[in-house]
Amino acid sequence: MRIIGLDPGTATTGYGIIEANQGEFTAVAFGAITTRADDPMPQRLQTIQRELQRLIDTYQPDTAAVEEVFFGRNVTTAITVGQARGVLLLTLVNAGLPIGEYSPPKIKDAVTGYGKADKNQVQLMVRNLLNLEETPRPDDAADGLAVAITHYHYQRFESLYE
Amino acid sequence: MRIIGLDPGTATTGYGIIEANQGEFTAVAFGAITTRADDPMPQRLQTIQRELQRLIDTYQPDTAAVEEVFFGRNVTTAITVGQARGVLLLTLVNAGLPIGEYSPPKIKDAVTGYGKADKNQVQLMVRNLLNLEETPRPDDAADGLAVAITHYHYQRFESLYE
Repeated sequence: MRIIGLDPGTATTGYGIIEANQGEFTAVAFGAITTRADDPMPQRLQTIQRELQRLIDTYQPDTAAVEEVFFGRNVTTAITVGQARGVLLLTLVNAGLPIGEYSPPKIKDAVTGYGKADKNQVQLMVRNLLNLEETPRPDDAADGLAVAITHYHYQRFESLYE
Repeated sequence: MRIIGLDPGTATTGYGIIEANQGEFTAVAFGAITTRADDPMPQRLQTIQRELQRLIDTYQPDTAAVEEVFFGRNVTTAITVGQARGVLLLTLVNAGLPIGEYSPPKIKDAVTGYGKADKNQVQLMVRNLLNLEETPRPDDAADGLAVAITHYHYQRFESLYE
């Protein structure tokens, strides 16, 4: 199963694409979709859509997962992140992909076994689970991979009861 | 000049399409794009995109305006409204439309001459400016028309200095 995981943001959306087979993971691609702060918002959203579509076309994931936005941020940030998140969800559903959504504590728990793990612990586990020689950069890419790994765990768990 | 104005929301996005010629306005269409609360968010966003695209195809506006989200709402609401707003902006920019964005006080000021006007005053002025026999319903449709009227005022103001 090939999974794309996304950590939404207007300036930087982290992505991670993994291949998961019986609990063995391989990193297919990871990185970040970035937009320029001095471009108008509609153009930035267009860039996010275009780049995500390019990833879907190139890597043909079977399913997708998007991090739920952390609710402690301020309202202005929330609206901006929400706009990027809306464009990601739209692009995924238009591509016909099933979509999972996971909160940060769920992701931390799925990846490290501890819902309050810190960023370093998550990155270390992502690196180990994917047998990477270095910690994925930027941080948002590691977060994208962590969301993808989380999606695999929940999909497998659900499939036990189907 | 034909203008589409939008008041973003996930459950209800108000829209108003006006024809503006030398300060005379005509209402072309108004109403609301609604989505079902029990549908998954990606499907709701897809509905918003599809319905807005249908309005663009049907009414062929020259330019578009979107209300800026009111920043006093809570963070959870802000993320949800932000998602709908992101999809609206994306659909408009993909359709090649120029986009204006206006805060609620700017809209109130442009329509009534008073930035702190209440909802009823705005609706009454929208009705008068458009020569409508009744106040447009739902409220979100009246808001969509108000955004469109605002956009006309700012466009005209800018054109004086071009």
